[in-house]
Amino acid sequence: MTSLAHSVLTGNRLALARLLTQVENDTPAGREGLNVLFAHTGQAHLIGVTGAPGTGKSSLVNQLAISFRKLEKRVAIVAVDPSSPFTGGAVLGDRVRMRDLSGDAGVFIRSMASRGSLGGLAQATAAMVQVFDAAGFDVILIETVGAGQSEVDIARLAHTTLVVEAPGLGDDIQAIKAGILEIADILVINKADHAGVESTERALKSMLDLAHPVEKVFQHHGQSLAVVREERTHSASEPAANLWVTPIWRTVATDGSGLAELVGSVQAHAAFLRQSGEWSMRERARLAAEFDLFIQQTLVDRFRARVPEERIDQVLESIQKREFSPREAANVLLSREDI
Amino acid sequence: MTSLAHSVLTGNRLALARLLTQVENDTPAGREGLNVLFAHTGQAHLIGVTGAPGTGKSSLVNQLAISFRKLEKRVAIVAVDPSSPFTGGAVLGDRVRMRDLSGDAGVFIRSMASRGSLGGLAQATAAMVQVFDAAGFDVILIETVGAGQSEVDIARLAHTTLVVEAPGLGDDIQAIKAGILEIADILVINKADHAGVESTERALKSMLDLAHPVEKVFQHHGQSLAVVREERTHSASEPAANLWVTPIWRTVATDGSGLAELVGSVQAHAAFLRQSGEWSMRERARLAAEFDLFIQQTLVDRFRARVPEERIDQVLESIQKREFSPREAANVLLSREDI
Repeated sequence: MTSLAHSVLTGNRLALARLLTQVENDTPAGREGLNVLFAHTGQAHLIGVTGAPGTGKSSLVNQLAISFRKLEKRVAIVAVDPSSPFTGGAVLGDRVRMRDLSGDAGVFIRSMASRGSLGGLAQATAAMVQVFDAAGFDVILIETVGAGQSEVDIARLAHTTLVVEAPGLGDDIQAIKAGILEIADILVINKADHAGVESTERALKSMLDLAHPVEKVFQHHGQSLAVVREERTHSASEPAANLWVTPIWRTVATDGSGLAELVGSVQAHAAFLRQSGEWSMRERARLAAEFDLFIQQTLVDRFRARVPEERIDQVLESIQKREFSPREAANVLLSREDI
Repeated sequence: MTSLAHSVLTGNRLALARLLTQVENDTPAGREGLNVLFAHTGQAHLIGVTGAPGTGKSSLVNQLAISFRKLEKRVAIVAVDPSSPFTGGAVLGDRVRMRDLSGDAGVFIRSMASRGSLGGLAQATAAMVQVFDAAGFDVILIETVGAGQSEVDIARLAHTTLVVEAPGLGDDIQAIKAGILEIADILVINKADHAGVESTERALKSMLDLAHPVEKVFQHHGQSLAVVREERTHSASEPAANLWVTPIWRTVATDGSGLAELVGSVQAHAAFLRQSGEWSMRERARLAAEFDLFIQQTLVDRFRARVPEERIDQVLESIQKREFSPREAANVLLSREDI
């Protein structure tokens, strides 16, 4: 199966599609392919696009792809949002819009079968992004629904995270306030031709003004790798070189308004990350987290291979009888020297 | 700190609040308390309430609590939704409604500080639910925002999961279709006095009709513990004793309309779970998952204690230079016999 990975490196789209399936299903062939491809990763700009249903996020992703194509960038789209038209939950209008991209060899769209990969969604997304990165895609757009923890985990993959809002979704602003704002590098008010755009922008601005500067702490094994203070104030003055001031952009994805400015801002963010050293810091934190996960999985696999199934069943029985708590039972079982 | 757990068992509210904080922060005292309390768990009915922002889910949780209080049940509310008024993101109207519950010793409301417990939200929720269960609360309402994977994980905790919709939130129905529908034991159309309730109900019904019967597979270590086929068709005929037909209820949480019927349905679902044997099956699957998690955490802690930090740093360095993939590096490090 190594040849599949090598075919991906030569630009074979069919091999790419096949390897993505292997990787998503976490097969031995997929794992081997990732090992081969890993040396070729680290070039792509990973852009997360997150927002509530109804914000027109998928159309915006579509327009971003078209804009990056005009800049001669090869673009991959990974749709993790179960309500995204890219994942098949489309209404007709969205399907029509997707036609703009189909047939372009510089674009590859892949949706995640999120239902099957419970718990491992962020991991599967990370692996698929690595394949696209090695395959030479310059820009990888990762679309998520942006509400749960797994979306935040997926956003951590990205170099640049766009949080999409729309006028008239008052309740969602509450949700953004509570968590999503912290992951936003760029805020987008899509459907900016709708009524209420001013009040949405005012609400977002006042939230940015209220927010304390965010300390992004990159940790590994409890050790801080680095602390980056990000100023969240939307100020008119020129930002310092080591500070990124979260901008707010208005777009109308259905006609492309505001897209040029947004793409410029996305590229400015990439430049900021490289200049400030945050690009490599984010990469290091991401690779460390991935390494941790493999350590963990290997340890668990080993444990399962060493402990007989009947022993586990006995222990579960005693837990269900409330003789031991799950934590006590785990401690008792692992206190044997040879496990 | 064992005495804190014992005070919880005697009904001391201050001890309960203190232990919940210890448990949420995963302190040694919290872990010890959970071990002591575990023998007293397994009595409460765990009810998940999930839905998009704007569905009036928090008001519904409030009304459910009031209804269960009328039935002389002790009620705990665990609010995991960052936009919930119970978590402090309240508008004034919601705060006023909460007054109905304050001052009632049979009710305890606790919100999760979801920002701090990245990745461990489901685990922290499970632990807090165990404390309420041991403390003698008959009904534990777990409120989540219902979009991401962590919400699905939290829903798995519950015996009965309510998915809340509201008229006029068309896009959200798409999201429900894709994933949330599968976790619903009961569908609720709240704000049923608003326009569009009929079309929302029609949409939900046709989704239920289209849905294949869901096979719920309870797994442990890759072994199926049990497979439960649930019929999703909303049919007028009497369901078989071993089938639960997902009902759709209309409510108006602001005036309590439909609450009596909904509470009756929730209690019917509990009876169904006990009769069909699914109650203990769900419990076994939940305890097995918790046990797995502790095994995993203990193995990782041990690994960290045995491998010098400098060795890890070297390995991360070589990963960042693309000399090894994260998976290869983990394999190399763990191939040493003594780790």
